[in-house]
Amino acid sequence: MTVSATLAANEAIAARRAAGQEVLALGFGEAGIPVHPLLSRHLGRAAAQSSYGPVAGIGTAREAAAGYWTRRGLPTEGDRVLLGPGSKPLLYALLHAAGGDVVLPKPAWVSYAAQSQLLGRDPIRVAVPEGEGGVPEAEAMDAAVREARAAGRNPRIVVVTLPDNPTGRLASEQSVKAMCEAARELDLVILADEIYRDLVFEEGSFPSPAAWAPERTVTTTSLSKNYALGGWRIGAARFPDSPLGDALRESVRGIASELWSSTPMPMQHAAAYAWSDPQELVDRVAAARHLHGSVATAVAELFAGAGCEVETPQGGFYVWPDFGPVRAVLAERWGVATSEDLARVLLDEFGVVVLPGTAFGDDPSSLTLRVAVPGIYGESDSERLAALLAPDPVAMPWIGEALTGLREKLTALVAV
Amino acid sequence: MTVSATLAANEAIAARRAAGQEVLALGFGEAGIPVHPLLSRHLGRAAAQSSYGPVAGIGTAREAAAGYWTRRGLPTEGDRVLLGPGSKPLLYALLHAAGGDVVLPKPAWVSYAAQSQLLGRDPIRVAVPEGEGGVPEAEAMDAAVREARAAGRNPRIVVVTLPDNPTGRLASEQSVKAMCEAARELDLVILADEIYRDLVFEEGSFPSPAAWAPERTVTTTSLSKNYALGGWRIGAARFPDSPLGDALRESVRGIASELWSSTPMPMQHAAAYAWSDPQELVDRVAAARHLHGSVATAVAELFAGAGCEVETPQGGFYVWPDFGPVRAVLAERWGVATSEDLARVLLDEFGVVVLPGTAFGDDPSSLTLRVAVPGIYGESDSERLAALLAPDPVAMPWIGEALTGLREKLTALVAV
Repeated sequence: MTVSATLAANEAIAARRAAGQEVLALGFGEAGIPVHPLLSRHLGRAAAQSSYGPVAGIGTAREAAAGYWTRRGLPTEGDRVLLGPGSKPLLYALLHAAGGDVVLPKPAWVSYAAQSQLLGRDPIRVAVPEGEGGVPEAEAMDAAVREARAAGRNPRIVVVTLPDNPTGRLASEQSVKAMCEAARELDLVILADEIYRDLVFEEGSFPSPAAWAPERTVTTTSLSKNYALGGWRIGAARFPDSPLGDALRESVRGIASELWSSTPMPMQHAAAYAWSDPQELVDRVAAARHLHGSVATAVAELFAGAGCEVETPQGGFYVWPDFGPVRAVLAERWGVATSEDLARVLLDEFGVVVLPGTAFGDDPSSLTLRVAVPGIYGESDSERLAALLAPDPVAMPWIGEALTGLREKLTALVAV
Repeated sequence: MTVSATLAANEAIAARRAAGQEVLALGFGEAGIPVHPLLSRHLGRAAAQSSYGPVAGIGTAREAAAGYWTRRGLPTEGDRVLLGPGSKPLLYALLHAAGGDVVLPKPAWVSYAAQSQLLGRDPIRVAVPEGEGGVPEAEAMDAAVREARAAGRNPRIVVVTLPDNPTGRLASEQSVKAMCEAARELDLVILADEIYRDLVFEEGSFPSPAAWAPERTVTTTSLSKNYALGGWRIGAARFPDSPLGDALRESVRGIASELWSSTPMPMQHAAAYAWSDPQELVDRVAAARHLHGSVATAVAELFAGAGCEVETPQGGFYVWPDFGPVRAVLAERWGVATSEDLARVLLDEFGVVVLPGTAFGDDPSSLTLRVAVPGIYGESDSERLAALLAPDPVAMPWIGEALTGLREKLTALVAV
């Protein structure tokens, strides 16, 4: 197992900077805003808490997470919630507990497939509906699962990401509903990774699978993206109130007890505060949403301007351009045949770090890239904080300069 | 997978107390002393650190851990160190990376076997040398591994625990050396879990396998036991400076990136301080060692007084009595035939929570128990702190009362 593509990109960026090389860091999924001082304060207040505590997490934090989901339209009791040191280990435990093959959208975040492979199973990838992301197209999923079963495989769980990493798209209600119905028909567990849920740019209803397949949907969240607390390692899973949900929860609790014991206790206290949605933090997330949306939209426009196909980002902080329309130029000028070639040219010739679509399971010949925009929010906490609070973030000089630099690089890349 | 026996005991204790039931809590491996205020202070100071950081951990924390090992006779560079959210996930990643069957001492800590089973492999258990603990007897290991290989299995790694949980014994230099030679002959990776290393009661040389099999020994440690920071989830692994060590480190780093991303960042800053061995913390560990040693010795004497076979504890905070000599009484009076029967009688009739030897892989008919002594250090931080600082901890009234209560219960248990 090599290091996760996104974390490897993070380390490559740090290494290049340490070596004094210029780099436009668009490779790593870190939210890029400073921690809110009230969150630090709550962590600091809990700095004498050192006991392991319950495997599932302390009651106050589980109740707070239950409230978080309840306020978002998914009524939840605290006993349905299980905390973990990030949602990543929870996802692994869930794939383990589901006990069979894993169905993924194509493309999908890098670690689902890697976790499946750590469990000894190649994922079954199903294309997303045209122009969408994060959810397998229902009919194609039905066909793929039946074909896999006919071939002796045992698909047990489908993972969806709402809104999506890498595409930045929020699947439509229609697509999610259809996927839920197919999953019920196929008796698949649905794992809904809603880590970017609070970062959907436009207000409106949110198509959570737990609304339409409540008996079989496990939903996960975390503080890593909305509050930019990736380094605090706090995640939570919400289990269905059903016999299947009980069985999965107890299995995941058992696995958790053997893999990580419990979730860092001081962070649990801070999480109990964060998940209670205090107004200060609600405002913070609104500012983050505005920042991510403004910059992601501007970046998408740059790629469109360079001739890419690119859907408008709807949530999170990613852009997913497809260089298919300029394939001939890229092949002739740079010898690019795959997304990996393209990412390498961008790094070697232009100092731009992005991830190739292949890292997300896309076909190598599909010239897709994942562009993570927070890398240009600023080089210091004060720059990043100013960007966060700006009415027009792309007008901040350092963001404007980065966008101009990116435009020039893209223009040079695709110039005939 | 059910919840780990030790964590289940912790939760059972909390549930009984919440229900107003008296309980003598000797079931859970928590060190039972308050966090040192300087550690809290360092955590609090790092409460604005929220980035993921490198998978392996930040340089200052890795360098500090390298210094920790170097000062303990194992010269180490920072690039040989990998941090994790507790040593438990590191152990799992190591078993995964080793890629074959796992050889364990019998008895051994509960989670090694459970982790092996999560990887789809039943462990190969090898008896420890008579009167020792934590290390498989070398000749028996050689025979077991050859037999397993002849049967088509693929033993790749042996786990040792120094000093041991559950037996409280520190394997002899002779036994460790012989195990190292056998492991080299058999080409097994050695995983030396030295989480209790700082808690050996008597001064003297420490038989670290990395001294005799440096090319193949991965050593793990944590802050959970010496500083009672189980709830902070900080562990570290030291990899050999060898081709095998490089391969294992990179494999574990890859697995880590997909299972947990990185180690909680604020804790890493506190860990960098702790692993630098400042005098205040050296004194703290000395006090903890004295407390654990005094109470464990007193508890062992109580079990001996009740007719058990019991070796003198040498490190950690466990006692491992064998009720074999009073088997007839237990059978007649209480219908006890197995260690599980015995643990159940102690709980149901006497309100004493301990773990049966079977939880550690011992034979059911072997009437062994693991007794974790920190459960009687006090009911509040002030009691526990007073116990920690007491020249004669067993003379503290609440510890004395608990010991008296335990003596009375054991006397009643084995009375004809």
